[in-house]
Amino acid sequence: MDNFKLNTHISGQFNAELEHIRTEVSKMGGLVEQQLTNAIEAMHNQDSDLANHVIEGDKKVNKMEMDIDEACVRIIAKRQPAASDLRLIMVIIKTISELERIGDMANKICQTALEKFSHQPLLVNLESLGQHTVTMLHDVLDAFARMDLKDALCIYRENKKIDQEYEGIVRQLMTYMMEDPRTIPKVLTALFCARSIERIGDRCQNICEFYFLFC
Amino acid sequence: MDNFKLNTHISGQFNAELEHIRTEVSKMGGLVEQQLTNAIEAMHNQDSDLANHVIEGDKKVNKMEMDIDEACVRIIAKRQPAASDLRLIMVIIKTISELERIGDMANKICQTALEKFSHQPLLVNLESLGQHTVTMLHDVLDAFARMDLKDALCIYRENKKIDQEYEGIVRQLMTYMMEDPRTIPKVLTALFCARSIERIGDRCQNICEFYFLFC
Repeated sequence: MDNFKLNTHISGQFNAELEHIRTEVSKMGGLVEQQLTNAIEAMHNQDSDLANHVIEGDKKVNKMEMDIDEACVRIIAKRQPAASDLRLIMVIIKTISELERIGDMANKICQTALEKFSHQPLLVNLESLGQHTVTMLHDVLDAFARMDLKDALCIYRENKKIDQEYEGIVRQLMTYMMEDPRTIPKVLTALFCARSIERIGDRCQNICEFYFLFC
Repeated sequence: MDNFKLNTHISGQFNAELEHIRTEVSKMGGLVEQQLTNAIEAMHNQDSDLANHVIEGDKKVNKMEMDIDEACVRIIAKRQPAASDLRLIMVIIKTISELERIGDMANKICQTALEKFSHQPLLVNLESLGQHTVTMLHDVLDAFARMDLKDALCIYRENKKIDQEYEGIVRQLMTYMMEDPRTIPKVLTALFCARSIERIGDRCQNICEFYFLFC
């Protein structure tokens, strides 16, 4: 009976610690979502203050990844969780890697915005594509919080629409270049920004894949 | 004394299992390196048989990632390793994620080769850039096998050269488009292949980063 109480107690502590880690992942996800939203806004409004704010914020994202990684190592070493809980911790470790890379992309978009867009507007509107990926990231984090596999599957499929939207932008940009080759450098910059945004959809899809494999 | 023997025995088993996992990571790395080499060759020689071989081989890469992930979960659950060993296992889990993504890129290059290059040669030579990333991947896997942090730092810096080479290719492709806008679709395809190859350098850099953070 005492042993049972002890086990329940230990399992209670483990659950509380795991819950804490999951909350931290949600916080990190929220920050990355905000970074991405700000990056897209900074790019469009040629807002160098906001771009610098995102670049500065990326350090916080990186620090959060390291802290959560460390918390995962600690909980495994201290609580020796069962295989099913370990799998969840694996999902967390892989998910935050992807989140950190999405943060890197927001950072990269802002650096490009500062270098290239400060004195010239973008040739195409990337707001819709950007908003689409922000929504996908939001939904994937929400599905993670609820561990909802069915939703994860819907979100996984959503990436196809982002790919189609991106293809449309590439075609649009190609016509600019064909009409006036002097636009080529500007078009390429817009193209790489669009590509970065489109790849965020792939990363959200990766996160969904982790759920499918481990849950 | 018996306890000591038992501990040594358990620790011996743990080491043997961990060694086995590290060998599997090296094998996976070797396969990914081969996939990448083949993808670059298939792209250049418009060799559709080789491209199909790479696309088929990607399933094996994915399976290896899943198997190593599973072996990591098993060793943690069964052997309850100390924090330092756990960190190494974390490095392995993150490393194989990157390897799997490099495999995906080799796959993507081959799919593009089959779709776009079957009846037309590439506009630029991407072999040197490709060879550079293959070497970087080879070196990073070698540093991993020897857990050589000093080498990992050198390799980390190597990515700058890949970036410069890539920038040169982008400039070269821009001149084609400016001279003859009809080349634009072909140029964009070459550009995206070059970009995929360049990003492999970033992924090798990511693997180096894992060593710095955890070792």
